[in-house]
Amino acid sequence: MKGNDNTAVLLMHCPDRPGILAVVTEFINQHKGNILYLDQYVNREEKVFFMRVKWELDAFEIPKEKIEEYFQTLIGIRFNVVFRLYFSDIKPRMAIFVSKMSHCLYDLLARYAADEWHVEIPLIISNHPDMESVAKRFDIPYYIFPITKENKAEQEALQLDLLKKNQVTFCVLARYMQVLSVDFIRHYPDRIINIHHSFLPAFAGAKPYHAAHERGVKVIGATSHYVTEDLDAGPIIGQDVTHISHKNTVEELIKKGRDLEKMVLSHAVEKHIERKILTYKNRTVVFQ
Amino acid sequence: MKGNDNTAVLLMHCPDRPGILAVVTEFINQHKGNILYLDQYVNREEKVFFMRVKWELDAFEIPKEKIEEYFQTLIGIRFNVVFRLYFSDIKPRMAIFVSKMSHCLYDLLARYAADEWHVEIPLIISNHPDMESVAKRFDIPYYIFPITKENKAEQEALQLDLLKKNQVTFCVLARYMQVLSVDFIRHYPDRIINIHHSFLPAFAGAKPYHAAHERGVKVIGATSHYVTEDLDAGPIIGQDVTHISHKNTVEELIKKGRDLEKMVLSHAVEKHIERKILTYKNRTVVFQ
Amino acid sequence: MKGNDNTAVLLMHCPDRPGILAVVTEFINQHKGNILYLDQYVNREEKVFFMRVKWELDAFEIPKEKIEEYFQTLIGIRFNVVFRLYFSDIKPRMAIFVSKMSHCLYDLLARYAADEWHVEIPLIISNHPDMESVAKRFDIPYYIFPITKENKAEQEALQLDLLKKNQVTFCVLARYMQVLSVDFIRHYPDRIINIHHSFLPAFAGAKPYHAAHERGVKVIGATSHYVTEDLDAGPIIGQDVTHISHKNTVEELIKKGRDLEKMVLSHAVEKHIERKILTYKNRTVVFQ
Amino acid sequence: MKGNDNTAVLLMHCPDRPGILAVVTEFINQHKGNILYLDQYVNREEKVFFMRVKWELDAFEIPKEKIEEYFQTLIGIRFNVVFRLYFSDIKPRMAIFVSKMSHCLYDLLARYAADEWHVEIPLIISNHPDMESVAKRFDIPYYIFPITKENKAEQEALQLDLLKKNQVTFCVLARYMQVLSVDFIRHYPDRIINIHHSFLPAFAGAKPYHAAHERGVKVIGATSHYVTEDLDAGPIIGQDVTHISHKNTVEELIKKGRDLEKMVLSHAVEKHIERKILTYKNRTVVFQ
Repeated sequence: MKGNDNTAVLLMHCPDRPGILAVVTEFINQHKGNILYLDQYVNREEKVFFMRVKWELDAFEIPKEKIEEYFQTLIGIRFNVVFRLYFSDIKPRMAIFVSKMSHCLYDLLARYAADEWHVEIPLIISNHPDMESVAKRFDIPYYIFPITKENKAEQEALQLDLLKKNQVTFCVLARYMQVLSVDFIRHYPDRIINIHHSFLPAFAGAKPYHAAHERGVKVIGATSHYVTEDLDAGPIIGQDVTHISHKNTVEELIKKGRDLEKMVLSHAVEKHIERKILTYKNRTVVFQ
Repeated sequence: MKGNDNTAVLLMHCPDRPGILAVVTEFINQHKGNILYLDQYVNREEKVFFMRVKWELDAFEIPKEKIEEYFQTLIGIRFNVVFRLYFSDIKPRMAIFVSKMSHCLYDLLARYAADEWHVEIPLIISNHPDMESVAKRFDIPYYIFPITKENKAEQEALQLDLLKKNQVTFCVLARYMQVLSVDFIRHYPDRIINIHHSFLPAFAGAKPYHAAHERGVKVIGATSHYVTEDLDAGPIIGQDVTHISHKNTVEELIKKGRDLEKMVLSHAVEKHIERKILTYKNRTVVFQ
Repeated sequence: MKGNDNTAVLLMHCPDRPGILAVVTEFINQHKGNILYLDQYVNREEKVFFMRVKWELDAFEIPKEKIEEYFQTLIGIRFNVVFRLYFSDIKPRMAIFVSKMSHCLYDLLARYAADEWHVEIPLIISNHPDMESVAKRFDIPYYIFPITKENKAEQEALQLDLLKKNQVTFCVLARYMQVLSVDFIRHYPDRIINIHHSFLPAFAGAKPYHAAHERGVKVIGATSHYVTEDLDAGPIIGQDVTHISHKNTVEELIKKGRDLEKMVLSHAVEKHIERKILTYKNRTVVFQ
Repeated sequence: MKGNDNTAVLLMHCPDRPGILAVVTEFINQHKGNILYLDQYVNREEKVFFMRVKWELDAFEIPKEKIEEYFQTLIGIRFNVVFRLYFSDIKPRMAIFVSKMSHCLYDLLARYAADEWHVEIPLIISNHPDMESVAKRFDIPYYIFPITKENKAEQEALQLDLLKKNQVTFCVLARYMQVLSVDFIRHYPDRIINIHHSFLPAFAGAKPYHAAHERGVKVIGATSHYVTEDLDAGPIIGQDVTHISHKNTVEELIKKGRDLEKMVLSHAVEKHIERKILTYKNRTVVFQ
């Protein structure tokens, strides 16, 4: 589970055609790859085939650095496959963005410290100094970039530099209360995970718990999603909800919401780290 | 639970003042009313006191037909109480409105036939003939009012007549796919229960499952609410949700939704029958 | 979904070996079967491969009545496959067993009457006359077999005769409060679905809601399972739960439990009808 | 919520008698206590009245140190009340017991560090050194007491000394894999909270996830409860569950279980800190 193995993961989709499943599994089997997990799904309406397959590389006859080329040549071109290959010896590198709230941050770091995930967290970025003490507890460098309307472009450029230097492969917005620019987002397509503190598309925007209280809903939720140029409208990764009653004040909704947010965010991060998420037409396919 | 008892229920709210709880309970206790259930809640932000109390009338010294007057004179005026009194020997009378789908209708009628609820269902109203066979199975008169833009006012007037003749005290829209006019709604304020097939306020309006599928949400829901002049925006009584995945087609969402809808609607109807719902500022207080 | 198509479903399991997935899909593809759904799962601990595949027969080159033989000859023997084939033009035939409670019965019959399921219900069997009126509402023959210690073997023999005459393929115990004999059960292995009114293995046996109340649990549940010779210990198909509180009396648990029971049972029946359940070592594999 | 107020909480139960609710609220009102929350519940079967009431002390005419005496004299004796009084200026002091797993520990400490709770955590006790680094991160003293059959009584005596010196008012077993002796438990009646990693009473004892997997259940759970002399049989505070499928290995159950455990434990601890739990006949009344 934590990647101290020698495996490859293939995430792919292509137009659905008879035999595609057999062709891919045979590609692995006949070259002595031992398939550990295989999950596939066909969207019948759009006639698209999606697959995630994980196999052991120890006896695999195609050298690791050649797999992409061989797969593309032998299968990809013929079946019009969009795919990505991941290898277990390359750990994803995750940057956490945070503002002033600690609940999501602690949940991510506790799992990291407990070695639950096959990931490195080389740095934490914030627009405020508040969470620095938390970062220190876990010995993770903490960088502060105060953002104003005037300096935003400049600060984001510095952030991108820092991410690059740290070879960050994806970003997690752990209640980061600052909208990223379109330019920034384009550097990490489908690689910035946000947690929105409502059950989207209900209560998009600011102060969702106040809006939920005002509307008198009986259930509140949280939504993890990839960040796209369209605010709060990116592909949804996961959602969960909890029941509330007329008795709950806004403060209690916020408190109950914190528990939802941290769990929904951590589960999305885990799925991302495990290479179990594909995006397609602003929706996600999340393998189990 | 089913009302073969001799009890009164008082549902009330008033500005919160010290002593209001004691005053009301003493009014019942000192006149030999045996309190069976009491539930109260104070909205601290708006300083409003809400209460539901149920007591046995057998030994109660104030005659049933005088309770309202006495309560108003002794407590209501002094504390500015808005209240309603209900007696167990008067069964609520419920009209079901339905169009072409049977799942909510069957769930309501099955509970009715099993004598789960203290209610009478004297009639079913529809804009289509499709559900007549279901009504016949349960021996309930079924009236068809086809609605067009032209005849709507006229047909609603006839419906209102029919409801009046049948002494209907509240209406349940069991997937009735026809918007009621403001005029109709005003005859039954907080007494028309609708089931909306989404987790409101997300996906208000028509075709919510299609919209949910398009958006790629991971949870779908259903919402019961009182009908007000503002479509899909009345006080929410209950909501529930179920998890879905990328694998689910629109048809599967509709199927999963049916189960949610019937349960959420029936639970709302039960709370209404049990006199457990108060409305206040477009929100509900739902006692347990 | 309701089987007005011309399709086959293969449910199979076998020792996991490389290539098994490709071999089966090619068997279908190369003979012009159009695969509609495929779901597979490998139990890595026990090294067993499970699969459900559904394909269109219209263009399939192997005649329907020969598929079983061909599959067995070409694949079954070689891979040690345990399998069953189902065809959409053969509707499963379901007998409902019931005692005195109507909630599960109504839920099953409402879905049946709404044509939600690809199933026939030729008869209802009971040990009591109470539910006869419900059966009549849906025009389904109702047979009463009062059971005593003395006549049990005899009555069950008559029941088995009746089931045979009606070509019943599986039985659903919709709160049938009578333990079936081992002999009876052997006639329908993995084809008798029961609903137990607790979250098994907690509170097996009689009066589970009383036991749950006594223990002070905060969650109650219901469990659907195949009936085996070991009472309440057969393979679990589905479970669901609901939260309760100290306020709930035993009667309220029973009431809340009814809603759980009917939903959990109907979902299990649906999975069975859709040929989505495999059993293996007293556990189930339930495909989505 | 966090106690930077000047309030009292009364938790009480007594035989149910007419007027008890009015008498208690008047005791507070007439002496100028401003009631902030009041929740009451009557167990009709056992005829017991339970109440939690919280009020502001600023204008309360009875001196804080005299409230207990006055209440006992004026109401307690007359109504046979069992009660406890808590004041907001006295913070509960909590000891955490832990073995080798960090997930519950981090969740508790993250909430503590974020100042979510009105509590002090003066120390952490363990039978292993593994979690010392976590304790250090949060600057909380960590004491190691290795336990063997031989030294258990002795070590527990030292632990009790340490708890006393630190004025610990309650203990939280955050996956502490060591059974406490009856003698130890008697020092903290209804003041030791444990998390059991199953949905009790199912799978009591060791290795519940293995047992759940073996039985093939479709839902797993976690249970928080007060520790009593009867292992895993104390009053249940809270329970929650999550759905699983045949696909989940024991390792995955353990992983999913960790999330349940930490949330269920933290919620129980919060209820305890907020003085919202009463125990009665091995069951809990948990106010909202």
